[in-house]
Amino acid sequence: MDLFKAMQERRSCRDYLPEPVSEEVIEKILEAATWAPSPLNTQPWEFFVITSKEAKGKIFDEANRCRMWALERSGWKWLDSYQIDFLQQAPVIIAIVGDPKKTGVDMFMEDGNVAYQAACAAAIQNMHLAAHSLGLGSLWFTLFDKKVVKEILGIDQAKNPVALICLGKCVSEPQKVPRKNVKDKTTYIR
Amino acid sequence: MDLFKAMQERRSCRDYLPEPVSEEVIEKILEAATWAPSPLNTQPWEFFVITSKEAKGKIFDEANRCRMWALERSGWKWLDSYQIDFLQQAPVIIAIVGDPKKTGVDMFMEDGNVAYQAACAAAIQNMHLAAHSLGLGSLWFTLFDKKVVKEILGIDQAKNPVALICLGKCVSEPQKVPRKNVKDKTTYIR
Repeated sequence: MDLFKAMQERRSCRDYLPEPVSEEVIEKILEAATWAPSPLNTQPWEFFVITSKEAKGKIFDEANRCRMWALERSGWKWLDSYQIDFLQQAPVIIAIVGDPKKTGVDMFMEDGNVAYQAACAAAIQNMHLAAHSLGLGSLWFTLFDKKVVKEILGIDQAKNPVALICLGKCVSEPQKVPRKNVKDKTTYIR
Repeated sequence: MDLFKAMQERRSCRDYLPEPVSEEVIEKILEAATWAPSPLNTQPWEFFVITSKEAKGKIFDEANRCRMWALERSGWKWLDSYQIDFLQQAPVIIAIVGDPKKTGVDMFMEDGNVAYQAACAAAIQNMHLAAHSLGLGSLWFTLFDKKVVKEILGIDQAKNPVALICLGKCVSEPQKVPRKNVKDKTTYIR
């Protein structure tokens, strides 16, 4: 698929069909992730591919707990009716796990180890685009306590599950999300 | 250009030809950036497009200062001979500036406002891919003190210049950077 078309068309999917995704397709999406750039080519990512109903159920419970916590903390009322059933519905969830030690000179800087997280985010964007071009929907999810997700998935304590990506066929084409005009976001220093 | 081809072929460019990049092309690349997903569609990015020789010179000086600081701090000897002339050579540098207030419920969580930075990183990956498909090289650069770059570019104190992206025609095709096999990075939880 054309690159610009994929970028422009790709949207977050919140409703998944149960149809499984083949491991061949999953591997293509993960390979796309690894083509992202990273600080000093450290490739700080790892992938946990979750198709187990039990594990998805535990993730759903944790996300729900976190949703209620966030509702109380923030007062953001939309969280009260925010449906996260996609965590149980999606045939696959991929946890992107970053290694804070695989980063650049940012580890010596004020904001700490951030470059490895940026690299993981770039890898995630590649995954979204790859998924879309392979006819799949995807969703970037971060409403969870990292410690709990580490425990559920058996992730090394020293590593950081930066996001969960839902993957699968969408029930229907996701709604278009408007973007602000880029000209209003740009300053030229000529 | 085909999406997978762009992802696989795109590499960091360290040597730029002086040939300018048209504002039409720059806008295409920035529009690609804005197609990235963001928490609650906050679109937390802004772009400073730098073609001014003077501003590029100041950025180069700041990055050099930071390079020497990092060398001393880290003891990483490669920093001693690390050439950052691309900051002066590249016809365009784009600063991606994130707004920490335009983030999701992460603002209430332990690690603080991180989702807006992840969204900016996804936007940067779109820029890299778009640039490559338009025949341009690009480089993701973060070795600078945010406070100093804010001052050089006149960026709002409350915002965060997350990266500088060099853009331009490459002198020669950048070297291929090897990737580890994705199978060695993947755990299945079936």
